[in-house]
Amino acid sequence: MTKVAVFGSGSWGTTFAMILTEAGNATTLWGRRQEVADAINGDHANPDYLPGVRLPDGLRATTDPAEALDEAEFVVLAVPSQTLRANLGAWRDLIPPRAILVSLMKGIEVGTTKRMSEVIREVAEVPEERVAVVSGPNLVPEIAHRQPAATVVACTDESVAGRLQAICHLPPWFRPYTNPDVIGVELGGAVKNVIALAVGVSAGMGMGDNVSAMLITRGLAEISRLGAALGADAHTFAGLAGMGDLVATCTSPLSRNRTFGENLGRGMTLAEVVAATKQTAEGVKSCESVLELARKHDVEMPITEVVVAVVHDGMSPSEAGMLLMSRSPKPERYGV
Amino acid sequence: MTKVAVFGSGSWGTTFAMILTEAGNATTLWGRRQEVADAINGDHANPDYLPGVRLPDGLRATTDPAEALDEAEFVVLAVPSQTLRANLGAWRDLIPPRAILVSLMKGIEVGTTKRMSEVIREVAEVPEERVAVVSGPNLVPEIAHRQPAATVVACTDESVAGRLQAICHLPPWFRPYTNPDVIGVELGGAVKNVIALAVGVSAGMGMGDNVSAMLITRGLAEISRLGAALGADAHTFAGLAGMGDLVATCTSPLSRNRTFGENLGRGMTLAEVVAATKQTAEGVKSCESVLELARKHDVEMPITEVVVAVVHDGMSPSEAGMLLMSRSPKPERYGV
Repeated sequence: MTKVAVFGSGSWGTTFAMILTEAGNATTLWGRRQEVADAINGDHANPDYLPGVRLPDGLRATTDPAEALDEAEFVVLAVPSQTLRANLGAWRDLIPPRAILVSLMKGIEVGTTKRMSEVIREVAEVPEERVAVVSGPNLVPEIAHRQPAATVVACTDESVAGRLQAICHLPPWFRPYTNPDVIGVELGGAVKNVIALAVGVSAGMGMGDNVSAMLITRGLAEISRLGAALGADAHTFAGLAGMGDLVATCTSPLSRNRTFGENLGRGMTLAEVVAATKQTAEGVKSCESVLELARKHDVEMPITEVVVAVVHDGMSPSEAGMLLMSRSPKPERYGV
Repeated sequence: MTKVAVFGSGSWGTTFAMILTEAGNATTLWGRRQEVADAINGDHANPDYLPGVRLPDGLRATTDPAEALDEAEFVVLAVPSQTLRANLGAWRDLIPPRAILVSLMKGIEVGTTKRMSEVIREVAEVPEERVAVVSGPNLVPEIAHRQPAATVVACTDESVAGRLQAICHLPPWFRPYTNPDVIGVELGGAVKNVIALAVGVSAGMGMGDNVSAMLITRGLAEISRLGAALGADAHTFAGLAGMGDLVATCTSPLSRNRTFGENLGRGMTLAEVVAATKQTAEGVKSCESVLELARKHDVEMPITEVVVAVVHDGMSPSEAGMLLMSRSPKPERYGV
């Protein structure tokens, strides 16, 4: 039995811990709140984040990081991306020396424009072959209710990726593919939230599926341009962690980012949308960091630019749409 | 003023003729039925195919191919793909010697496994630089109701593609991009209908958006493999005529192929679905030709295979799903 610690008892952390437990691993889930740990241990439930889902009996929860980390071979991190640095700093000295650190988080750190795996390497002082990421078309409520899904597990060390694939493979429910391209897999997961905001705004304004498909396609083109500048493999963006996750996030009513954008497109103000939203729309926080990263590397990201302008600078959605549609006629490929 | 003939007064032919007219071209629409031509000329309407849409006053309709073709610089073909050979054979001798032939059709000819542009070149005896294709995320009801959309116009002769782009560019409503890759643009349009059937079946069975995103992503991977074998440019599949059209067709309730698949997934028999469907689901006719083409070129297309098995050979949707999800764990890229 492989011993795994999962940090973060939100919906994705809990669901991934459920997969790990059912796939036969000794899994301990760390959460900040005692009542969440008690509900998981006593009632096999996490009603705040996964209402109606019965968790496996074998899943243990704790609020004690030392207990979770004791002899852990894999340490899965699923805390809010902007709190990762502080959280991991507090746990660092408890992490077993050969443990693999796995990121489920999707975001770019505000201020540093670092990807989550970069923050992990820096704070935990581990080499890249001990850091892996998991990302793909993984709308959590569907997985928690045992709908099938596939994902990508990435590590520059392919044998580590293979070990991670083995512990979270649960056929026919959850199907992980390996990929050595950590940068591409992580960027796909982070930037798709920004494009989902754009698709949501467009849908909220009453635009149809042709416009959504156009934004998704041109959105992936700008994610791929950024990836190329950062050293990612172009093929990753045509895969599950690129196109797959983007399509799921942009088209599903379960996506918080899409829903947030829809409310903006219908004419609500940012403050009204924030007030109406229970959980965080990651793209709202990440979009400025993504744009900052793009500018550092001289990459053109026109959709991300208008998202930042609409979300943070008060540009109207209709003005943003006109900006995108009134560019001069072009060949489909240019500048690549 | 450029003189354009459009053959086929179905929903896409009529809508494209509307765009051409409003973009300032002298456009004549040929239709088989006199009453359709009369409604277009008299009432500026095509109620059977575009209910509620007012057509521009300048659009002329006729049932006489010689009248439509007289001095035409562009001949746009939008007839059912399996009737193209017979139709074009009858019109061939009336086509002006330097006219560009433009295909709006999406399909593979049954029996020959030829793409529409190949049929055009063969029947009209014209070189490839006189044949262009138009394909992209273009759900017709949305365009007919003046929602914005983008498309790809492809011709191996880029100056011809540029001329076609110029006559159908109607900002901010309709935005064409040029691409020299006729094979890729055409394949994207033909095979997406097969993948949309698969996504529809999955949705009809109650599967969620993670599964749809997985089928769309792995579907594009198999379209790209077929394209590589036929000499297409891989970049095309990451563009509007590849991924863009696939996403629109697979996720929109306006897609006939998706709807057809949904009915199968809900447990209706093929005969029941056909009886319930007014217009054709192109993928039902094309899927066997696509698979035949793949086998000729030794290309693995697992999703297309199960679609053929479900649509034509009586395999149950749940058996098809198990077949796809129970393959062995793999790296995301293999065999490329």
